[in-house]
Amino acid sequence: MIQTFKLIIEYDGTGFSGWQRQPEKLTIQGELEKVLSRILNQPVTLAGSGRTDAGVHALGQVASFCADTSLAPQALKKGVNRLMKHPIALQRCDRVPHTFHAQYSAISKEYNYYILNRETPCAVGRNYVWHVHRPLDLDVMNQCCALICGSQDFKSFENAGSPRRSTVRTVFLARMDRLDPDRRVFRICASGFLKNMVRNMVGTLVDAGLGKVNPSGFQHILWAKNRSRAGATAPARGLFLKQVNYE
Amino acid sequence: MIQTFKLIIEYDGTGFSGWQRQPEKLTIQGELEKVLSRILNQPVTLAGSGRTDAGVHALGQVASFCADTSLAPQALKKGVNRLMKHPIALQRCDRVPHTFHAQYSAISKEYNYYILNRETPCAVGRNYVWHVHRPLDLDVMNQCCALICGSQDFKSFENAGSPRRSTVRTVFLARMDRLDPDRRVFRICASGFLKNMVRNMVGTLVDAGLGKVNPSGFQHILWAKNRSRAGATAPARGLFLKQVNYE
Repeated sequence: MIQTFKLIIEYDGTGFSGWQRQPEKLTIQGELEKVLSRILNQPVTLAGSGRTDAGVHALGQVASFCADTSLAPQALKKGVNRLMKHPIALQRCDRVPHTFHAQYSAISKEYNYYILNRETPCAVGRNYVWHVHRPLDLDVMNQCCALICGSQDFKSFENAGSPRRSTVRTVFLARMDRLDPDRRVFRICASGFLKNMVRNMVGTLVDAGLGKVNPSGFQHILWAKNRSRAGATAPARGLFLKQVNYE
Repeated sequence: MIQTFKLIIEYDGTGFSGWQRQPEKLTIQGELEKVLSRILNQPVTLAGSGRTDAGVHALGQVASFCADTSLAPQALKKGVNRLMKHPIALQRCDRVPHTFHAQYSAISKEYNYYILNRETPCAVGRNYVWHVHRPLDLDVMNQCCALICGSQDFKSFENAGSPRRSTVRTVFLARMDRLDPDRRVFRICASGFLKNMVRNMVGTLVDAGLGKVNPSGFQHILWAKNRSRAGATAPARGLFLKQVNYE
């Protein structure tokens, strides 16, 4: 019987060359497809909600696939988690209608980006944060976050490499929160994301937090629709794909 | 000028063969001594508050050493953190009286042990928790924790390999806390610890939480002064040396 499955996947992206399968490289898609194909005894091709770069983590990446099997979703989930040797763990596995597609059915996605903002570096969890030594002005950063919200052209925050029909996206939420005296998190929810969009935003927001750019300068960077006007791409390790939302 | 320094050290023990320097092995002591010797241009030997095993982490390991230098502690700390390539980070560096010794001056130590208690494994931070699939009864575990407190012979929780004059230690605090729906932490503060004492306690407490041992059985394990009566040694990865206390 042909079933369509929806997977919710957590992974530590540190040792991977990103989500997307590539020959000779360790990728999340590649390793998951190997284990699924072995369990289901047939070739499995996953449709992910989108790619994540090397070193980027996920708490709730979503992928879908079809297979000819009578196996229950729960049994499949347990089997994958038992056989998987890499830091990839299925959080859910559900049977969904055949019309479901992890990428095309998604209506929004949420990312978190973690910053350790103090002089002294950390050791535990250092693959999960960007260490910024100098104090960040969170108020200024949140003034810039407000400028990000809404439907607009985010070309200034897109890296070359993935041509898209349009660079307009809708940002539903963007803000910086103080998690504890040392930790900050940038939360963003949008209809979709351009290549490196979150990391380019964070790089530019950190410039603002350090006083290198003011909110009016940030606005002009957005309006310029020119990648070279924005700040550097923030490191991959602070970025987590938190959740993909569907109807 | 001869100065004595006290270091507070955070490390991710995952890739290390433990704290103690060993030829041809990656150890925290070994890597720190290398970097300190390079900065101070003299051989440096650290006295740690105690060893930690391979895979055990620290948020507040303490080490002391003497060196002939005029370098300020803050400059030394920055230098070490800048040169260190491994997940080891000095959290503090202070000048202390020459009578200070990280091991002999310590009056108590605190460890935390983290357990992920749910069916589904995690991927992010999986080197920082022990994943226990079946539900743990926290009340029963805390009844056993109460039996651990006080001055007593902990021979049942000592692994062979480090002969000591006495196996009596004083436990000032021992309890299991619920951090969130899925996470538990065992907190223990004691005058000192025997080899693998915390991990052996956690292994036995988990047996109690799973219903394999009741509090009365736990009491008899303690009284037996016999390692073979207690449970298995819990994995290193959940264990954190949190803090070492001095007068």
